[in-house]
Amino acid sequence: MSCLNIAIVGATGAVGQELIKILEERKFPVNNLSLFASEKSEGRNFKFKGSEISVRKLDYFDFKKTDLVFFAAKPFLSKTFLPEIIRANITTIDKSSTYRMEKNVPLVVPGVNEESIGNATHIATPNCTTIQLVLVLQPIIKWGVESLEIFSYQAVSGTGMSALNEYLNQCRQFVDNKEVTNEVYPYRIFDNILPHIGRFDEQGFSDEERKLENETKKIFDLQEIKIFATCIRVPVSRGHSIVVSLKTTKPASINDIISEWKKSIYLEVADDPESNIYPMPMNVACKDLVQVGRLRQTFNSNSFQFLCCGDNLRVGAALNAVRIAEYLLKIRF
Amino acid sequence: MSCLNIAIVGATGAVGQELIKILEERKFPVNNLSLFASEKSEGRNFKFKGSEISVRKLDYFDFKKTDLVFFAAKPFLSKTFLPEIIRANITTIDKSSTYRMEKNVPLVVPGVNEESIGNATHIATPNCTTIQLVLVLQPIIKWGVESLEIFSYQAVSGTGMSALNEYLNQCRQFVDNKEVTNEVYPYRIFDNILPHIGRFDEQGFSDEERKLENETKKIFDLQEIKIFATCIRVPVSRGHSIVVSLKTTKPASINDIISEWKKSIYLEVADDPESNIYPMPMNVACKDLVQVGRLRQTFNSNSFQFLCCGDNLRVGAALNAVRIAEYLLKIRF
Repeated sequence: MSCLNIAIVGATGAVGQELIKILEERKFPVNNLSLFASEKSEGRNFKFKGSEISVRKLDYFDFKKTDLVFFAAKPFLSKTFLPEIIRANITTIDKSSTYRMEKNVPLVVPGVNEESIGNATHIATPNCTTIQLVLVLQPIIKWGVESLEIFSYQAVSGTGMSALNEYLNQCRQFVDNKEVTNEVYPYRIFDNILPHIGRFDEQGFSDEERKLENETKKIFDLQEIKIFATCIRVPVSRGHSIVVSLKTTKPASINDIISEWKKSIYLEVADDPESNIYPMPMNVACKDLVQVGRLRQTFNSNSFQFLCCGDNLRVGAALNAVRIAEYLLKIRF
Repeated sequence: MSCLNIAIVGATGAVGQELIKILEERKFPVNNLSLFASEKSEGRNFKFKGSEISVRKLDYFDFKKTDLVFFAAKPFLSKTFLPEIIRANITTIDKSSTYRMEKNVPLVVPGVNEESIGNATHIATPNCTTIQLVLVLQPIIKWGVESLEIFSYQAVSGTGMSALNEYLNQCRQFVDNKEVTNEVYPYRIFDNILPHIGRFDEQGFSDEERKLENETKKIFDLQEIKIFATCIRVPVSRGHSIVVSLKTTKPASINDIISEWKKSIYLEVADDPESNIYPMPMNVACKDLVQVGRLRQTFNSNSFQFLCCGDNLRVGAALNAVRIAEYLLKIRF
């Protein structure tokens, strides 16, 4: 197993920061770590394995010396810088949404479809809500999916550092009896919910709702899955929650489903509501497991509702990227 | 139209306080207003139409001089005090959940089923989420309901004053960098969501989820409606939100549904997401209209998702009770 030269593009963002932490935590074999961000972050230092690394502007990126790039920058940067990296055939794990639906770009969640990577150098990692959804569906997909409806309770950090700071600032403004102001979101998120994540299409669905739909179909390679979502931002700093209404093709029992979930190394079943055990954002913040619970049978033995929670910055972003890198270590490097 | 002697039992609670406000706002013809609460609130004063009214202990309630009782006290009190009031045949509008499902107690939402009151003196007002749901369903029920799935984002004030104070205190503790403590809820609600409203039954459904199901069936007098809910508390002080997945019996169009909603005097259609117009708790707090929007067609021309928000203390509680009283004014007093 080689030690890799790694670059993180978007190192000062919420996901970039998590990537630095996780690479160290999981003792990923790093030879050299380069951190890149926008001009305004140039010169900021971050600790990695005891030494300080200075953030540089992306313009100075000499990608030829790099084995692996984690691309976690804002979408508009993926359109300007990513094509160059991709043309140079540098293995890139791309958190941006720009190329996720392109046919020759595998969209990967280890534990579900890592084998789809093949020889690809440009590998996309899905949207945060999609990742926790497919990790929960994978163990039970053998019963078939007739339809899926998803209702999300998404954390503010999913939007990035600026939104997180706005939310924390709004808490302070409220407690200090000052006017609660907003810039990042169209309305305040503190003491409110926002049914608005991304732009809306002509049918009234938001980007986020379509991502869940399209990415889930691509990951399972099942275009025929019927899936519709309502995505809502809630005043929670960290940890996405989604309620799933699942209709299976074949009948299943609560016990069967729970037993399959318990076998997954990616999940923690939290389903004993009478003992106050159920998934919650506070349980999954900064954790690696997706919690799943409150499973109930609804209309018949083919229909269920349940709740799952996952850390949007780890499981839903940085950890999934590092898991892809760990898989590549085994098959490529 | 007579001027009534009115008593509010549970006057110091979140709903009781709203009742006092709404009776004054709507110029309800009150001759004498008596306020009752538990011993610890005895002697507190509240303003009503310019004069101060002292809160008394319920033991001193001389119900014979009362034309109309609003009962908004804690459920355990409804078991001790309510039977006596009911036996005396005093018209009582009862917010407690204790008698809602009893056959001879009409469960009433004006605008939907006020005619079910008949000669009953004991009239129940439904759970907060049920009220906003049925107000939104009423204009479109003519297309038939094949099934309903409900996903809620419920405000803290729905639990009462103690929970609201706990949430506000948690905001303060967080901003002051102190430990965030909880007593009312099993976990903190600030920066978290709680998939736990009421007790859980053997099938894993909570009281709140079953109330939505059973009360909706009773109000529409349609036992065959299939309805399942996942109810979740969110860190919002005021304004319940529910996302509804509706399957109609007959096909309907987005335009047809919007047009019916626009005719309702109880609703405000907020459905222009590209212009950032959609229902939100901050829009409905302290307001009388239920906002409905983000209507989308999903699987086929019989299936829809939409979002509605209503003030849980007004529309979902006190205002519904006063609307019942206003209807009684016309038919009884």
